[in-house]
Amino acid sequence: MTQNIYDDPTFFAGYSQLPRSVDGLASAPEWSSLQALLPDLRQARIVDLGCGFGWFCRWARQQGAAQVLGVDVSDNMLARAQASTSDAGISYLKADLEKLDLPPASSDLVYSSLAFHYLENLEGLFATIYRALMPAGRLVFSVEHPLLTAPSQPGWQTQTDGRKIWPVDSYLIEGPRRTNWLAEGVIKQHRTTSTYFNLLLRQGFALRHLEEWGPSDAQIAANPSLEEERQRPTFMLVAASR
Amino acid sequence: MTQNIYDDPTFFAGYSQLPRSVDGLASAPEWSSLQALLPDLRQARIVDLGCGFGWFCRWARQQGAAQVLGVDVSDNMLARAQASTSDAGISYLKADLEKLDLPPASSDLVYSSLAFHYLENLEGLFATIYRALMPAGRLVFSVEHPLLTAPSQPGWQTQTDGRKIWPVDSYLIEGPRRTNWLAEGVIKQHRTTSTYFNLLLRQGFALRHLEEWGPSDAQIAANPSLEEERQRPTFMLVAASR
Repeated sequence: MTQNIYDDPTFFAGYSQLPRSVDGLASAPEWSSLQALLPDLRQARIVDLGCGFGWFCRWARQQGAAQVLGVDVSDNMLARAQASTSDAGISYLKADLEKLDLPPASSDLVYSSLAFHYLENLEGLFATIYRALMPAGRLVFSVEHPLLTAPSQPGWQTQTDGRKIWPVDSYLIEGPRRTNWLAEGVIKQHRTTSTYFNLLLRQGFALRHLEEWGPSDAQIAANPSLEEERQRPTFMLVAASR
Repeated sequence: MTQNIYDDPTFFAGYSQLPRSVDGLASAPEWSSLQALLPDLRQARIVDLGCGFGWFCRWARQQGAAQVLGVDVSDNMLARAQASTSDAGISYLKADLEKLDLPPASSDLVYSSLAFHYLENLEGLFATIYRALMPAGRLVFSVEHPLLTAPSQPGWQTQTDGRKIWPVDSYLIEGPRRTNWLAEGVIKQHRTTSTYFNLLLRQGFALRHLEEWGPSDAQIAANPSLEEERQRPTFMLVAASR
């Protein structure tokens, strides 16, 4: 079973203070790129897997979505999500994404931001999503880029000439990676780009777009420390359709 | 215009001594994986882009291909390819792949091994290939993996704990990389995985399979020095269809 780190008090306290937690979608640097992969949301039935505080659910309703189901495993996250809305078009469900069941052909869009790299059994979830989508329905998701999750000891290293390099090892050795991000012992599952893709293709998905996200010139101008994220991508954004 | 390094005498002498040059397809460690992506070749009309010494062209005919066109920019390579066969089902064409013209709907398979990462204008070639394929025709190709081409200074580094790491930088900064492989000043074009994919998708291709190639257990047992290639993939193998 996937670790539910979001109900770890130390992790939750740290996560709650991230800009994306406090200020919502627009403060996530990859949001505008992820948004560009979304279909027209008007009248759409949407599922958000790993909905967290519900920022995307509320935004999707503002764009005209008919109904949005937010799913998360974390009591902490769902409590805050539920306290943040009284919109009858949004509902929340507590579930382990590895054991999720969704009604067949019930959704136009399945969305997920930075949740899938926590899951051990992603193939089962992709099968569930495929069944839950209408024909031509879309899956749009982001994960930590495989280059971020691969290294046995992640972290920038400065070379003697001053260049920063990202030390890749173990890229083809998939499985859990224990990191200390916001709390000690956070378990992420490293998968290669090809595994993400072939799992989708095997379920019948058609791939529509891939983005290995890095900051734009404008983002670096506003926040020069982002420059290093150009040296290796931070996120992988994927659009696929049934 | 793309550098034609294969007609550099030093490079050609070195390349001619590689196992894959001397012994052909089976001595390329990624060959069995690439072969697995090929469709049934019986009666197929095939184009091999960057055919080199013609090993694949001859093998494809042995599998029952109706006709094979090998294309290469290198006089050296084509001279040896032509000297190696008298098969009327194989023809060779000297052409710069960036300026190649192929008849519409004339091929069932376009194949290319380790050639595309030399090209500056890949989008134009993908458009040419798409037009040249029959409906449901297939494109199967390998390139050096973007992790191999990205670093400004490629080469394994040994950490203080003995681990080998591959120093990634500049991943999102696409363009030429000057390396010294077999000869000095070999120019390769770094592209991200997403660029390869989105160029294909934009032409209308459907992606069928991606493999980030690393050695199998059996290959490492036979040649332990291959183990490091598991730390970061060497090749990217792609199958797409019209």
